[in-house]
Amino acid sequence: MKILGIAGSLREGSFNKGVLRAALENLPTDTQMEIADISDIPVFNQDIELPQPDSVKAFKEKIVSADAIYFATPEYNNSMSGVIKNALDWGSRPMGDNSWDSKSAAIVSASPSRLGGVKAQIALRQTFVFLNIHDIKQPEVVIANAMQLFDDNGDLKDEDTKKRIAKQVVALVEFTKKIK
Amino acid sequence: MKILGIAGSLREGSFNKGVLRAALENLPTDTQMEIADISDIPVFNQDIELPQPDSVKAFKEKIVSADAIYFATPEYNNSMSGVIKNALDWGSRPMGDNSWDSKSAAIVSASPSRLGGVKAQIALRQTFVFLNIHDIKQPEVVIANAMQLFDDNGDLKDEDTKKRIAKQVVALVEFTKKIK
Amino acid sequence: MKILGIAGSLREGSFNKGVLRAALENLPTDTQMEIADISDIPVFNQDIELPQPDSVKAFKEKIVSADAIYFATPEYNNSMSGVIKNALDWGSRPMGDNSWDSKSAAIVSASPSRLGGVKAQIALRQTFVFLNIHDIKQPEVVIANAMQLFDDNGDLKDEDTKKRIAKQVVALVEFTKKIK
Amino acid sequence: MKILGIAGSLREGSFNKGVLRAALENLPTDTQMEIADISDIPVFNQDIELPQPDSVKAFKEKIVSADAIYFATPEYNNSMSGVIKNALDWGSRPMGDNSWDSKSAAIVSASPSRLGGVKAQIALRQTFVFLNIHDIKQPEVVIANAMQLFDDNGDLKDEDTKKRIAKQVVALVEFTKKIK
Repeated sequence: MKILGIAGSLREGSFNKGVLRAALENLPTDTQMEIADISDIPVFNQDIELPQPDSVKAFKEKIVSADAIYFATPEYNNSMSGVIKNALDWGSRPMGDNSWDSKSAAIVSASPSRLGGVKAQIALRQTFVFLNIHDIKQPEVVIANAMQLFDDNGDLKDEDTKKRIAKQVVALVEFTKKIK
Repeated sequence: MKILGIAGSLREGSFNKGVLRAALENLPTDTQMEIADISDIPVFNQDIELPQPDSVKAFKEKIVSADAIYFATPEYNNSMSGVIKNALDWGSRPMGDNSWDSKSAAIVSASPSRLGGVKAQIALRQTFVFLNIHDIKQPEVVIANAMQLFDDNGDLKDEDTKKRIAKQVVALVEFTKKIK
Repeated sequence: MKILGIAGSLREGSFNKGVLRAALENLPTDTQMEIADISDIPVFNQDIELPQPDSVKAFKEKIVSADAIYFATPEYNNSMSGVIKNALDWGSRPMGDNSWDSKSAAIVSASPSRLGGVKAQIALRQTFVFLNIHDIKQPEVVIANAMQLFDDNGDLKDEDTKKRIAKQVVALVEFTKKIK
Repeated sequence: MKILGIAGSLREGSFNKGVLRAALENLPTDTQMEIADISDIPVFNQDIELPQPDSVKAFKEKIVSADAIYFATPEYNNSMSGVIKNALDWGSRPMGDNSWDSKSAAIVSASPSRLGGVKAQIALRQTFVFLNIHDIKQPEVVIANAMQLFDDNGDLKDEDTKKRIAKQVVALVEFTKKIK
């Protein structure tokens, strides 16, 4: 079982990158997780989508070879970040080559706000209809007040939150086994 | 009255760019419209948001000096494009300097699909709560089957659609006068 | 395999009821479908939710005994109908007795409008996170211009649309087999 | 200036009814507020929408005579309640007699959960496009952990929350004056 983790923030100390590292350290047995690097993916422009930039090609290969996707998204302006939406868009292109097709997925969000990025989750989930991504719904993991839960390096230090993340990854793995 | 038009696609022959040009050619009196160039805006990364890239600085200045925004968005994967979300994000930053604050706006979408990008409109509108953008709701302009309405250069050739766009711009101007 | 069909309109000649009848007539082998009658379900009020009204009790039993749910929703005011949301709410109550839990589901919408009720689908799908309903994403069936596709009794007469519905039900059945 | 307050829960001790009472006690000068009683509005059925039930007729008259609407919505299943959606639907009917047209509005939500009903707000706001309701966006008032803020009668006892509500009503009044 291979999971691809994708964080929707490029910031080095990103809470959502920290979420992925916490997931990585608490994987169920027989499960691998790779964290995608999307920092070199340019802004999408259909006029220059082919030949694919190397960063996009590598990203799409990682998606295709994964069994499941774990999205860790910040909330920017009541929605997912443009960063993650742009990566979603590249991953679905060119027409007829949607790398996301039939993947299973889970969403987590971490945010300094007391609402924890839940509105980003709604916006991200809306894209799954077209992308044909099978998302698990529960447990819902919304990490609010991130300032208090992560250290200065963006590493998650809160044990309860680590457990919630680990539990969600287990649910993702079990669901993925079923639908494969 | 100054309107800033923003298209959510970077493609040269973009239907949504064509929508903005059609709007520009049918403006009400005493109204100016400028079409923003967002092609040089990089993917957002909070670590390098300051000093602002020149493209971002120029974009934010255009937003601030506009009375109203006219968003023409394509639909990518059941939502707005990453391109336009990324531009929205930059325009709202750095924290405390939200250039969109209190602007009025209207949304139009053009798409080759028979649903005309209406799901992109829903996603885009969701951001207006945080951005504090006052959007007009009616008339709702959803331009479906764009292949048949635009020519090979992306210029709108359908007269009925031109009228719908012009009518929406009038509604935007009238609403903007009220809330200023 | 038992599917429960739920239409979000109480109108006798409802297009969405017609969609369910069309699905019923084209079921895959080894599949049964029952169409729920939600016309007697009252407006929800937590003060009087127990003892459950007979209509609610019967409805919840049908949900529980079904393997999958097929939602046929009209679009009222850019969203699902209050009718269907009210039925969803009763089905999730009382607290701790969510009859929808872990069901699989598909959504179809029929509407006289040219956008076919797709905004109702977005609103309905948003509830699946809390209800823990596993929805299939593709094929997406949005039945626009319903006036031309249904007869005066609300029976679907368009053969192509019947095939799209039948294909979606097959996809729902296959997905349900996997996740059970 | 007349505001119509609408709570999306019928429960007697509803937190959202309590929000409306708190708003009523802290109105700006020259502002009146009436709280709608929607408990007698039946589930919508187009076959019997005319002649309008007395409860609906009275409700629509209150909407029409109001300058602005203040929606206090609970969150049921990740969305607004069926109760409030059903009232919205009746208010928009019959076709051509949308009582909500051109009203201004604000949304508040109260919920025992730590996310305070914010997902209900997103769902409710989505309907405003069709209803043509002009909603204010800021301040965003999301009242979480309601158990700790309201007393056993559903009366709001938290002074800070009262101030947030009062401030939102002021913003609604100011916006309404502009767009009238």
